[in-house]
Amino acid sequence: MSIRIGIFGYGNLGRGVECAVSQNSDMEVVGVFTRRAPETVKTVKNSPVYHVDKIGEMTKDIDVMIICGGSATDLPVQTPMIASIFNCVDSFDTHAKIPEHFEKVDNVAKQSGKIAMISVGWDPGMFSLNRLLGGAILSDGKDYTFWGKGVSQGHSDAIRRIDGVLDGKQYTIPVEAALEAVRSGANPDLTTRQKHIRECFVVAKEGADKAKIEAEIKNMPNYFADYDTTVHFITKEELDRDHSGIPHGGFVIRSGRTGAHLEHSHIIEYSLKLDSNPEFTASVLVAYARAAYRMNIEGQCGCKTVLDVPPAYLSAKSGEELRRELL
Amino acid sequence: MSIRIGIFGYGNLGRGVECAVSQNSDMEVVGVFTRRAPETVKTVKNSPVYHVDKIGEMTKDIDVMIICGGSATDLPVQTPMIASIFNCVDSFDTHAKIPEHFEKVDNVAKQSGKIAMISVGWDPGMFSLNRLLGGAILSDGKDYTFWGKGVSQGHSDAIRRIDGVLDGKQYTIPVEAALEAVRSGANPDLTTRQKHIRECFVVAKEGADKAKIEAEIKNMPNYFADYDTTVHFITKEELDRDHSGIPHGGFVIRSGRTGAHLEHSHIIEYSLKLDSNPEFTASVLVAYARAAYRMNIEGQCGCKTVLDVPPAYLSAKSGEELRRELL
Repeated sequence: MSIRIGIFGYGNLGRGVECAVSQNSDMEVVGVFTRRAPETVKTVKNSPVYHVDKIGEMTKDIDVMIICGGSATDLPVQTPMIASIFNCVDSFDTHAKIPEHFEKVDNVAKQSGKIAMISVGWDPGMFSLNRLLGGAILSDGKDYTFWGKGVSQGHSDAIRRIDGVLDGKQYTIPVEAALEAVRSGANPDLTTRQKHIRECFVVAKEGADKAKIEAEIKNMPNYFADYDTTVHFITKEELDRDHSGIPHGGFVIRSGRTGAHLEHSHIIEYSLKLDSNPEFTASVLVAYARAAYRMNIEGQCGCKTVLDVPPAYLSAKSGEELRRELL
Repeated sequence: MSIRIGIFGYGNLGRGVECAVSQNSDMEVVGVFTRRAPETVKTVKNSPVYHVDKIGEMTKDIDVMIICGGSATDLPVQTPMIASIFNCVDSFDTHAKIPEHFEKVDNVAKQSGKIAMISVGWDPGMFSLNRLLGGAILSDGKDYTFWGKGVSQGHSDAIRRIDGVLDGKQYTIPVEAALEAVRSGANPDLTTRQKHIRECFVVAKEGADKAKIEAEIKNMPNYFADYDTTVHFITKEELDRDHSGIPHGGFVIRSGRTGAHLEHSHIIEYSLKLDSNPEFTASVLVAYARAAYRMNIEGQCGCKTVLDVPPAYLSAKSGEELRRELL
């Protein structure tokens, strides 16, 4: 008997979820839910498409709803609404607002008796898990998180909003020397500028003032001013040919000390190198959907995060198989 | 109120546990238990020492017993015995015998109502956890585990048993080219020889036949014959000066694919670089002792492994703090 998955929202992330479910034989996609006219939406793996208004009629058909909306405006509304009738998983990633989102969703899910797993993905998600593990094991130590090399959607959007810019992509890149300093166990204090550089590929409109665009990017507060930023002007063809992917990744490093006089140094490093940010995030969502289903079957309910899930619940294998094959 | 820890067995691992507990303000060591005469044992952090025969009298004083015996002969006997009266944690690392050890300990712990956490450390342990997570997220993929650079106790012992050898140390070293091939996403099939090399530092007895010793090491079945092995003869002084540490480490890499046509490649890498293998293992044991205590307070019992523990239970911080500070 398969775990029956619903997909709420069908952009890059939703398509990634549909593909990821097809890679797991213990699951199936029952339906994709969209705000668009269903007949206009063609799914990658031929999953049926319904209008979002139909979800109330399908509570008996879906074990876990994977919510694929955005964190800014969609998820704060969608997750509480969906948690009132379904087990669900979201990828809410506005770090500062996680406690507030958790409270709201927890109240609803405890009332409905469902599991709502929030902030699943890689950061928050697998990176959070590794920050926790590193700190729990090496209590005297320091955490470092680096992002990239990868495309930052928010920074790319910021570039595109500048007058005279037709299109653009921004890559966040960790500074190799900073990574090496951390790996050496030196526990350096690093400024924002020392940790990451930002590289921008910009298509200017015909006749636009490139020097002005470049200055505007480099001095943009919050987004670029605190970083060493390089700007390359390229053609639309070059942008489409060389920069259409959505790669990302990063590093979580815990550097800590043990021993009678803290004389021994240890480095724990977790890193990701991802060809497709949304497809990897989707794969994490799908594994946690399996866990949400199992935890609910066991009688648990309420809001959960990756920090609350026993790892064995993520795997399709039994506890016995896991102990024999990979412990 | 502190979590009260007992340490059963006081070698390198036991000393590491004593030091690790002193790094965690929510725990204290109530006693070290030894088979030796207690008055002959001096503890690093001045913990009281008792003879192992006393444990039966101290069931009310200890929340979790951390068992620091060896996997070959100690733990198969000690863990079931201790699980009958205490919550406990061990580092049983004979991979092939884990299912058998689990069964035996599970029966006892279910009867006693205690939590017995087995095979805690880094492999088995954190490496197992990462093999599970990698496979659950990237279901179409391949696992790679590399060990080192580090001292292998078993291989060092094998060298020391050779006729004419006074002392020796063996390092297991991952082959850099193999690591790079795996990181490239090529999913190579690697032989034993392609994955690791073995480097030996040997002190020969006066007048011993060094060529014969070297040949005997290089041709030793199981231990060295399947590897490219180098042997260096050094003096006892050099060995003590340059090779007295117990460093170790390694890499768990999951390489997998996603997308409608599996067109995107992803690499998840977890690595450890440890100055002291026993002290790091001890630090993992202590974090899982915290989890064992909490799970038992909640009413759980039986045998558990790192795959069964919700990560939040490992941290001294509350769920609220964890969500706010590191999710």
